[in-house]
Amino acid sequence: MAAPSNRPETRVERKERTRRAILDAALTLCEDSSLVALSLRQVAKEVGIVPTAFYRHFESLQDLGLALVEESFVSLHAVLREVRRSDPTFEQNIDTSVETLLDHVERHHAHFLFITRERLAGPPAVRAAIKREIDLAERELATDLEWLVTSMGASPWSPDDWKALSNLFVRAMVSTVEAVLVAGGDTRAQQEVAERTRTQLRLVLVGALNWESRPAEPALRASEA
Amino acid sequence: MAAPSNRPETRVERKERTRRAILDAALTLCEDSSLVALSLRQVAKEVGIVPTAFYRHFESLQDLGLALVEESFVSLHAVLREVRRSDPTFEQNIDTSVETLLDHVERHHAHFLFITRERLAGPPAVRAAIKREIDLAERELATDLEWLVTSMGASPWSPDDWKALSNLFVRAMVSTVEAVLVAGGDTRAQQEVAERTRTQLRLVLVGALNWESRPAEPALRASEA
Repeated sequence: MAAPSNRPETRVERKERTRRAILDAALTLCEDSSLVALSLRQVAKEVGIVPTAFYRHFESLQDLGLALVEESFVSLHAVLREVRRSDPTFEQNIDTSVETLLDHVERHHAHFLFITRERLAGPPAVRAAIKREIDLAERELATDLEWLVTSMGASPWSPDDWKALSNLFVRAMVSTVEAVLVAGGDTRAQQEVAERTRTQLRLVLVGALNWESRPAEPALRASEA
Repeated sequence: MAAPSNRPETRVERKERTRRAILDAALTLCEDSSLVALSLRQVAKEVGIVPTAFYRHFESLQDLGLALVEESFVSLHAVLREVRRSDPTFEQNIDTSVETLLDHVERHHAHFLFITRERLAGPPAVRAAIKREIDLAERELATDLEWLVTSMGASPWSPDDWKALSNLFVRAMVSTVEAVLVAGGDTRAQQEVAERTRTQLRLVLVGALNWESRPAEPALRASEA
């Protein structure tokens, strides 16, 4: 994002460049630690600015964390929305969603390592922001799933059942992202995780498609016979 | 665990008491932070011992973290094994498993807050130890699920499918624990989480029971018609 060499960098460009450098430094420094273990002084040192200069860009480390959460999710929501609206079938939807998610995570590797770590271990405001983003994805998916499943002739479900289904999907995706990041650069392990996720989402869909046709969970009752 | 007042505390008892105090201090100090942000000095100060005395009990903070992982899981594996072996039906199994898990998490609240946080944000050895325990639960459950599902007349699945099913169950349980801990003392929210988990596990089981009877995922094919 450096200014073209044929003209001097403007003040706005320089400010944006420093802001970016602070965000990147925080991502790097957090890699084997956590935002709660980070000091503003460390970040400033890594960027090469005096600690007080940090405050021209962010109010606090927490504020910086919130900016990282935002950039991680803005593009993810957009690509997932795109996928869900383009594919008419479940099978293609599952394959494309898993692929798109993992591709996105690979391209924004440091961001997703950050999200995965801070989701449960970060400062309270950062944890809350990540929860809001995941809840948003769940609500959007619930609407889509309702449309897809009912368009296939399923009888109406209770709102709680739609939420449970959507939550199960999104949690499976969150677990997948975690497992892929834990696998590190091991592409074979990553592929196994992706394949497992596809099987799981299909299993859930088979459950969902057979859920409506059963008045009171006879599949479970059968086990008691 | 103080010694009875009618006799002086033995050396072994005193050592055990200090060890326990160190473990509890680490749990308390980690509550709004993480093991990676903790210093040995802080723990020693909280317990009221000199920092060097810490090493009579643990080699490092990481070693202390591993001890906390162990105590969290030993009893959990035992109670879950008990549940799975006692109930003959899926429906009862699901209800009892969810209830037992949440009861266990409530009784060992600080431990599970610790596990939930350190699972992805802790020191590498602690993360690896938690992963091993969760993987163990998955392998045990895969064996049980295979027995349960095939005893109901399902045709043989591939080993990968059993693993995917078991992984989906265990990840749903991990998400449930996280959601219950995030809900804090809000018992209504906790009950909603428990109810949602029960619905999800039933959905997955309906999927599993209908999986065998489908030669090549016709439920998914149907959506393409």
